[in-house]
Amino acid sequence: MTVRNSVTPRAAGEVSHFDIETDVLIVGYGAAGASAAYEAAHAGARVLIVDRSGGPGGASAMSGGEIYLGGGTPIQQACGYDDTPEAMAAFLSAALGSGADVAKIEEYSAGSVDHFHWLVDRGVPFKPSMWDAPTWVPPTDDGLMWLGENSWPFVELAKPAPRGHRPTANDFGGKLLMECLTEAAESAGAETLFDTYVTTLVVGDDNTVVGAVARQYGRELTIRARRGVILTTGGFVDNDAMLEAYAPELLGHTKVSAGTDDGSGIRMAQALGAAVRHMSAGQVGISLIPGLAARGMVVNALGHRFINEDTYPGRIGQSALYRNNMGGSWAGDDTAVWVIVDEEGFEEVPEPQRWGVRPTHVAETAAELEELTGLPAGSLTATLTRYNEFATAGADLDHHKAPRWLRPLTAPFAAIDVKAGVRPPSEAGDRRGTGASVFTLGGLHTDLDGHVLDHDGGPIPGLFAAGRAANGLHGFGYISGTSLGDGTFFGRRAGTAAARNA
Amino acid sequence: MTVRNSVTPRAAGEVSHFDIETDVLIVGYGAAGASAAYEAAHAGARVLIVDRSGGPGGASAMSGGEIYLGGGTPIQQACGYDDTPEAMAAFLSAALGSGADVAKIEEYSAGSVDHFHWLVDRGVPFKPSMWDAPTWVPPTDDGLMWLGENSWPFVELAKPAPRGHRPTANDFGGKLLMECLTEAAESAGAETLFDTYVTTLVVGDDNTVVGAVARQYGRELTIRARRGVILTTGGFVDNDAMLEAYAPELLGHTKVSAGTDDGSGIRMAQALGAAVRHMSAGQVGISLIPGLAARGMVVNALGHRFINEDTYPGRIGQSALYRNNMGGSWAGDDTAVWVIVDEEGFEEVPEPQRWGVRPTHVAETAAELEELTGLPAGSLTATLTRYNEFATAGADLDHHKAPRWLRPLTAPFAAIDVKAGVRPPSEAGDRRGTGASVFTLGGLHTDLDGHVLDHDGGPIPGLFAAGRAANGLHGFGYISGTSLGDGTFFGRRAGTAAARNA
Repeated sequence: MTVRNSVTPRAAGEVSHFDIETDVLIVGYGAAGASAAYEAAHAGARVLIVDRSGGPGGASAMSGGEIYLGGGTPIQQACGYDDTPEAMAAFLSAALGSGADVAKIEEYSAGSVDHFHWLVDRGVPFKPSMWDAPTWVPPTDDGLMWLGENSWPFVELAKPAPRGHRPTANDFGGKLLMECLTEAAESAGAETLFDTYVTTLVVGDDNTVVGAVARQYGRELTIRARRGVILTTGGFVDNDAMLEAYAPELLGHTKVSAGTDDGSGIRMAQALGAAVRHMSAGQVGISLIPGLAARGMVVNALGHRFINEDTYPGRIGQSALYRNNMGGSWAGDDTAVWVIVDEEGFEEVPEPQRWGVRPTHVAETAAELEELTGLPAGSLTATLTRYNEFATAGADLDHHKAPRWLRPLTAPFAAIDVKAGVRPPSEAGDRRGTGASVFTLGGLHTDLDGHVLDHDGGPIPGLFAAGRAANGLHGFGYISGTSLGDGTFFGRRAGTAAARNA
Repeated sequence: MTVRNSVTPRAAGEVSHFDIETDVLIVGYGAAGASAAYEAAHAGARVLIVDRSGGPGGASAMSGGEIYLGGGTPIQQACGYDDTPEAMAAFLSAALGSGADVAKIEEYSAGSVDHFHWLVDRGVPFKPSMWDAPTWVPPTDDGLMWLGENSWPFVELAKPAPRGHRPTANDFGGKLLMECLTEAAESAGAETLFDTYVTTLVVGDDNTVVGAVARQYGRELTIRARRGVILTTGGFVDNDAMLEAYAPELLGHTKVSAGTDDGSGIRMAQALGAAVRHMSAGQVGISLIPGLAARGMVVNALGHRFINEDTYPGRIGQSALYRNNMGGSWAGDDTAVWVIVDEEGFEEVPEPQRWGVRPTHVAETAAELEELTGLPAGSLTATLTRYNEFATAGADLDHHKAPRWLRPLTAPFAAIDVKAGVRPPSEAGDRRGTGASVFTLGGLHTDLDGHVLDHDGGPIPGLFAAGRAANGLHGFGYISGTSLGDGTFFGRRAGTAAARNA
C-alpha cells in the first residue's frame, strides 16, 4: 500500500513553527463545518475553516437539501400535521436501524423545533406546503414531504407525521442551504482557507489535539488551534481501500459525494485512537422512480417482492443491495431488481417525474415478461397473482403496502431494470451506473457535544467531529435529511463546545 | 460509559519497574497463541504466554476442531480427492466473501500441505476417511468432510475438493487439538502465566510496543517484551458494547466463546492507532440439522426458499440472519425460519444425528402447515409445488441444490422452527437460545507476518496479532476451519516474526 499522506499524528514538539494560529480549526466546509463555524464564532472564538476544494459546499451543496426536522415545526403545523419529539424519536430509533444512537436521537428530536428556527434565522426558506407522494425529490418547491413515516412498519411504531423539510427550491435544494450557512458562518466572523488539504493532527504531550498539518499547493502548512479541531470532512465513499475494509457492498457504485469523501478525517482520528461505529452501513439511492414503484411491484432476481414499495426509497435500496444481492456481494445469486408496473400506473406518474425512465420490456402476460427479463419461469406469474389478490382484498398480507397504493395490475405489463439506472433532470447524458448511488454512514464515535471518543469511551481532548465524518444518529438504517440534519445540529454543538474549550 | 480497564497505551517512561521480562509476550492461549508460542520459542526467543483464564484453551478448545486444509494433503489423497492450492484459493476467495484478503488466502493455500504436516508433527491425528454428507460435526471420527466446496455456486467457481480436516475424535475435536498445541508450545520452552488479564500496551517514545500491563488477583503486573507482543485474545462476541457499535445483528444470540472474547486485544491495538477490517461480519451457527435441511426446504417468514439447502450450513445461517431477518434487526419483517421435511427425509437422518430436534408441527397439506406455523396463506403451498417440480425434473432452477438432495416431498409434511434451537449431544438441558450461535470475524488488520497495521498501512513496531483478534482471511463470509486454520497458520508466522524482531 502506497502511503501518500501519513495520518499518524505529529507530536507538537516536532512542529518548530505554526504558520497559522486560530482558536478553533474546522476541517471541511460543508453543512456541518459551516454550522460549527457559526456557533464557534458566535461564541467569541477565532475560527478558521479549511477545505481542500476551491470553495465551500462539499457533498452538502450537491444534495437535495432535505433536513429531517419535526416535533411540531411551524411548517408541519401549517400543513395540518401534529407531531411530538417523542413520536419523532420513536420513528428515528426504528428507521435508523439496530445500533442507532438513541441518546443522540432523543436530543436531536427534543431540539428539532429550535433547530428549525435557527435555520430560518440563518435565512433558510421553507414553504408551508406539502408534497404527498413517494419521490426522491419533489418536482415542486413544497417545503414538507413524507420520508417513510406513513409506511409500514413505522406507521405502527410511531404516530406518523411528515418530517422531510425542504429549503424552498425547485429540485435540489442543497446549494441554497449552503449559501445560507456559509453566509452565516462568515458573517459571524469565521475565516476560510481553500485548496488546503489537512492530512495530520498535531498532538501535545498529553495527547491533546492542538493543531493540524495541511498541504497547500505542494507545501506543508502548520496550523495551531488553541481550543480545538473539528473534523467535518465527510464520509469515505471516495476511498475504495476503506470501502474494501469496512463496507465492500458499497464498492463499484456511483458515489454520492463531491469527490472528496476520502475518509481522511476519520483516519486521522483513528490514528489517534478514536473509536468508530457502523462502518459497514451505507445509504443506497436506488435507481427507481418511487412513484412508479409505489404503483407497482419491486421484485428481486427470483421474482419475489421483498418490501412494501411505498416506503422510503432508500430503505428499498438498502434491502436491494444488502439483502437481495443487487450489488453482487453474495456469491452466486443473480443481482437483478425489477420494477413491474402496468400502463395505468406508468401514466399516473407525469413524464417529467419519470426522470427519463422507460420500460425495459413490455408484455401481455407475466409469463412472457419472465422470458424477456430472464426471471425464473413461473416466478413473476405467481407473484403477480398473489399481489393482485392482495390488491383486490385491499390488504397486502406479505409486505403491508398501504391500501392507497394497492390496485390490481392489468395487462400489458412493463418491467423496468433498476440496474439500468436513471437520469435525474439535473444530469445530462445517458443513463449510467449500477442502479445504486451510495454514501457511507459509519464514522467517528462522538458524544452529544461532538467530542470524539476513544476506545475507553472518553473524549479525546481538543478533538471534535460532526457530519458524516461521525456516525451521528445512525445505526444500519438511513432516512433522507438525517445527514444534513445531524450534521448541522451536532455541528452547532461541536462549534459551541470547541469555543468553550479551555 | 464506565471505564473499568483503560486501553489507552501507557508510555514506557511511566512504568518505573517491569515485574517480568521476556522476549515475546503472547496474550491469549488458544490455538493461535499456542502456535505463535511454539514458533517463537523454537526460533530461540524467550516466550511468555499470558491468559486471563485458569488454563489454556479458550474458544479453540470448545470448538469442533476442524481445520481448513487442502491443496493435496495426504488425507485428501487417501480419500481419493485431487486438490491444488489454486483451487483452494479460488474457493476461499469466493466463500469468504467480498473484501476477503486474497493475498492471505493465496499464502495460506500455498502453505497448506506444509501446515498439515506441521500439525501432524505436533501430534494432531487425522484419520484418512471421509464423511460425505452435510453436517455441523460428523458423529464419527472421520478425518475429512465437505464444507460447501461441492455446493453451488462454489462448485462452478473452483474444482471441488473436501477440505474440512478433523482431528481424530468423536464429536468435538478442539480439546484434542489444544492438548497437542499446548504440549508443543511448552515443550519448546514457552512459559505460561494464568489468571492474568492484560489490559494495556506499553509503548516506547517512538510508539514501539515494548510490553504490557496486566491485572493479576487485583494487583497490577508490568511485563516487558523485548521483541514484541502478539495479541491472540480472540474476537469480541462477549462485548455487547462492541457488538452494538460494529455488528448489532449479532446481539442477543448464543455466543460461541469461552466467555472471554471481550475484544480487549482489538481495543488495545485500536487505541494505539491500529486499523481493523470487517467488524460487522459474523459466523452464524444456525440451529438446524444440515442433514434434514439438505433433504427438505429452508424457508423464511414469507415461505420463500432463500438458499440451496445443501450448502455449508454457516452460509445458510448468515443468509438467515443478515438477509432474512432471523435476528430481527430489520424493523418490521417477521423473523421466522423453518425447515420443511417429509417423513422419508426425517427418517433418513439417524436419530442421534438429529441432536434432539423434532418437528414443531406436522400436517397433511402445505396449507394446513401454513395455518399451524403462521406462514402467509398460500406461500408454502406455492413454494412446495415449485420445489417438487424442480425435484421431479432434477434441476433446482431457483437455488441450484445438487440433484443428489432433490426429491419431491410427500405428505405428511413437518415444519421445524429453527429459532427453537437444537441441543447438541455434548450439551445437557433443554433447547434454548435464539436459533443462532455466533462469533465475530472482524478484527485487526495484519500483514502476512502478523504485524498489526496502522491507518497508513504500515506495521506498528513490536505489535503482532493472530486468530480472531485479527480479521485474517475473511471478508463477510466464513467457512468452518478457517479460524483454527488462519489462527494456527498466521499465528506461527507471527511467532517467527516476533522472535526475529530486533
